[in-house]
Formats: sequence, structure tokens, C-alpha cells
Amino acid sequence: MSKTYDSAEFHAELVAAGLIVPTTIKGGYGRGAVFEDILERFDALVMRNAAGDGAEALTFPPIVARQMIETLGYLDNFPQLAGSVHSFFGNELQARELSERVAKGERWEDLLDITEVMLLPAACYPVYPVFSGLLPEGGRLVTVKNWCYRHEPSDEPTRLQSFRMREFIRVGSPDTVEAWRDGWLQRGLTLLQGLGLPAASDVANDPFFGRAGKMMATSQREQRLKFEIMVPVISLEKPTAICSFNWHQEHFTGKYGIRQGDGAVAHTACLGFGLERCTLALLKTHGLDPAQWPADVRAQLWP
Amino acid sequence: MSKTYDSAEFHAELVAAGLIVPTTIKGGYGRGAVFEDILERFDALVMRNAAGDGAEALTFPPIVARQMIETLGYLDNFPQLAGSVHSFFGNELQARELSERVAKGERWEDLLDITEVMLLPAACYPVYPVFSGLLPEGGRLVTVKNWCYRHEPSDEPTRLQSFRMREFIRVGSPDTVEAWRDGWLQRGLTLLQGLGLPAASDVANDPFFGRAGKMMATSQREQRLKFEIMVPVISLEKPTAICSFNWHQEHFTGKYGIRQGDGAVAHTACLGFGLERCTLALLKTHGLDPAQWPADVRAQLWP
Repeated sequence: MSKTYDSAEFHAELVAAGLIVPTTIKGGYGRGAVFEDILERFDALVMRNAAGDGAEALTFPPIVARQMIETLGYLDNFPQLAGSVHSFFGNELQARELSERVAKGERWEDLLDITEVMLLPAACYPVYPVFSGLLPEGGRLVTVKNWCYRHEPSDEPTRLQSFRMREFIRVGSPDTVEAWRDGWLQRGLTLLQGLGLPAASDVANDPFFGRAGKMMATSQREQRLKFEIMVPVISLEKPTAICSFNWHQEHFTGKYGIRQGDGAVAHTACLGFGLERCTLALLKTHGLDPAQWPADVRAQLWP
Repeated sequence: MSKTYDSAEFHAELVAAGLIVPTTIKGGYGRGAVFEDILERFDALVMRNAAGDGAEALTFPPIVARQMIETLGYLDNFPQLAGSVHSFFGNELQARELSERVAKGERWEDLLDITEVMLLPAACYPVYPVFSGLLPEGGRLVTVKNWCYRHEPSDEPTRLQSFRMREFIRVGSPDTVEAWRDGWLQRGLTLLQGLGLPAASDVANDPFFGRAGKMMATSQREQRLKFEIMVPVISLEKPTAICSFNWHQEHFTGKYGIRQGDGAVAHTACLGFGLERCTLALLKTHGLDPAQWPADVRAQLWP
């Protein structure tokens, strides 16, 4: 495959190889069996790497309470990425009106009302309320894997509206949590570089909305609250973030009353591997046929 | 555990055993590690059972094009179950208005607009457009596993807003497709009864909306287009459907121009295992601790 970096060309190659299956949704393509096998094998490698840590595994659906999105300030910071779920609560007459409008190709969304849920923007969100109250000595460590939604339709194969994240979430004293985040930043780099990926880490910021968001982003960088590991996938100059590390300090623990055993407010941090992006980074780096990948990479993913 | 059938009691037992983790969302609870292990092992058993069939595995995100929901008549039949995804497309001023309303606890959804996606109501939907055009000799067989959304909030542990389905989808000549559906109905029963579940099959209908929907349901039953396999989970008299079989005839193939090699319109059928419901049926039947399940059941799930 080509070692140039071009988004449209990479997309076309992925389709031609059957790795992805086009749909009409921008950033909503299907994944073929080989793509999925790589993704699952990569996730399994991460889980083997983390096995000794004893993380508790929880699984949540890809929806989240509307109230949580409101409470956590998501709509202040990322309104452009949110996905709000609306449904039909009407009677027979209104249902007929809905049918008729759909048949005529007219707009019909004013016949809907909000449900109590929104789409999950990050896999870790549902975990924080579970921590509410006094933590056990040493805090807690949880892992989740889930589909996340962000409304940023794009033809670029690494920018998906719906994608999976493997996350680890640590809650405990500020020192414990910061040391855990620092440790995993090195561990994540070692894991990804060990797969032959040209991975590098850097301070980063979230895509806060608007002018006020620019200040938030600057503050986040100055406090070194977010790091990312990046690999060139569709551009050599602007590598793609495939793993991110977030130290939330008291953002979640303050909202949900999460306290250390001695009563002091706890801190949280999380790290997430973007599973589709890790898969795409491997395909870009080693080629579209995993059977031809370097033996030491194959040995790690298909042990 | 109790062998009475009571929804609230079963829910409480599942929570106490750590099998499920409550959230504030009705029908949106978290799943513990033991619950997930059963679910994944059951899915793996189904996939081993089906391995000889050579189904092509595809994976789609849990969103679907709004246009597809409109085209397929979902809003005529099930408007009350639909999940429409809305997001914010505004400017700085409008974003400030949104923030302020959220902070004041006021309604804010009129500041959103529709996106091009809705939530996936059944795992098979994204597969049909992939079949468009002339089919190969003998048709095609595809398998998918995905999170499905239906807006029916409930405290009943088997009725979830968001749940996973393992589906197989067959497309080909009418005879081929009907025979495949009939064969799998027996195969599904054998598989589920082989796990010690008191499973029985019957003709069924979809939950069509309103008075017109009653006629649709009657017609669906008379034509024997839908079957379900049921197991008592929260009620002995009203057992829970854990697997369903749908013969769509030309519903999808007509819309997407799916034709047999000779040019005649093809038929489709699908079958789906409700993975959470299968897991809950196993827990209700054999008890809340899988380590204590009958040896022959364990041998099949943990081979």
C-alpha cells in the first residue's frame, strides 16, 4: 500500500480491501471481519497488559441519562458534539400526521419530544455515579468498553460519528491518580511502539466550543491535564490521536460526592484507546493484509 | 434463588448479586463482569453452532441513516419506539443561550436540529443496502451483533431501552429463505433447550402502533411471518421472547433493488437472539451463580 498520507486514498484502499463497508452516513461505515478481528485482538492485548492491575469490568449501554449530560456541563463545552435522543409520544391522530409527513418528504421532528437519554459521548461517563460516596482504601479502578457518539460527520476514515473506546478509570487520592496517569502514559507508549507504531505523546486539549472554549483549551494545556498518543494515519504533519489521558481532578468527584476514606474529595483520571483509530494506525503502518504484518507484531496480537 | 416469577424481586436479586448495576435510566442498567461473561459465552456458543454455515460477519455502529428509517416505513409502524438523534448547529450566541437554559433547568431542545442519523432499532437494518443489486448464485448469509435502541422505558429487567442482538440474515430465492427460517427455528429451539431452558416457540407479531397496527399484527400472524422462542423469566404465564424469526418476503429487497441472479426479486429473513434476555433466562433458570449451574450447561458455555 501507499506510504503517502491521503485521507481519500486511504478510505478508497480500505473499501477496496473489504476492511470497511461504505454506508450513506458520514463517519458511520461498516467494519468487515478482518478489521473487527484486528480491533478485538488489539483490545485483548491491552487487557492482557492490564490484567495484573485487577480492574473491575463494567458494561453500560451506549446511552446516558440526559440529566448527567446537563449536570456535567457537557453542553457548555461541547454542544456541537452532543447527540440528544427524541421519540414520539403522541396519539393515533398525531401518528397519522407523522406518517403523512414522512411520505411527503416533509420535516416531522416537531412531532417528537425529548426522551430521558442522550448518546454516550465518552465510555467513562456512566462509571462516575457508581463511585458515589466513600471510597475503599486505595480507591477504585474500573474498565469499560463502549460505543461513543460525537456529531462530527466527516469523510475522513479516522473521524467517526460512532466509535469504540477501551477505557480505564482510576479514582482515589490526588497523588495516586496523578501517578497512575503518568505511569499509563509511558505504558501506553511502550505498548503502541512495541507494535511497531511510530507513536509519540504530547500535551493536548479537548475541542471546546467557541471563543470561550479557546480559553478553556489554553488552561487545560497549561495545567497539563490532557495528554494524547499520536500516530500518522492520514497525515504526517498532523498525526492522529489514538489514545488519550485525562486528569479530571475534582470535576466528576465534586458533582457525585465521591470521597476518600478520610472524607476528602477524591480525584479521577481516565485513559482511553480509540479502538478504530488504533486499528487504522496498524493498517496504515503495516499494510492492509494482517497476514503480511511483521512476525513480532502478529505474535503479540495473535498469540 | 426464588422460583417465583416477580419482576421487581428478580431485579433486586440481580442487583444484590452484582450481576447488574443500577443507573437512573429505566431499561438502561449497567452489566457486571459475570453477566457479561455469560452473555459473551452464550454468543460464542451460537457462533460455534453456526460456524459451518459460513456467514459473512459485518459490524455496524449503533446508528442508522435517518433516510433508511423513513424509507422502510419504521415511523408508520413503530413511531413510539424510534430514537431520533438531534444536535446543536448554532453560533456563539445560541450556544450561550443553550448554556444559560441548561443552568436554569429550562427546556433547551428547541435549540437543536436533526442530524442525519437515528438510533438502530434492529441489528439487521444496515445489512440490506449492502445486498443491493444482483445476488450471487445461492444468495448470501450475513451475521451481525449490535446494540439496538427502542424507546420503551421500564423497570422490568428484560425490557431494555438499549440491548444487544446477535442476528443472522439470509437473502435468496423465496424457497431458500423460507426453508432457512424453518430450519433455524428448530435449531434455535434445540440449542436453547440443550442449555436446560424451558423454551417453546410460537407464531408472534411485532408491536405495531395504534388501531391500524392491530390489523398489521393480525395479518403478520395469519401469514406466519414471525415466530418467537419464549422462556419464563419474569412471568410463568407470559414468557419472555428471547429469540425471534422474521420472514420479510420482499419488504427490504423491493426497497433496495435486491435481485436473484435471474433478475427476480429476492426474499430476506432474519433471526435474532436477544443476548441480554438469553442471559437473564439462563440466570432465572439455573440460578444467579454460574459456578453452580449444571455441569452439562457449563460444559457448553465454558468449553
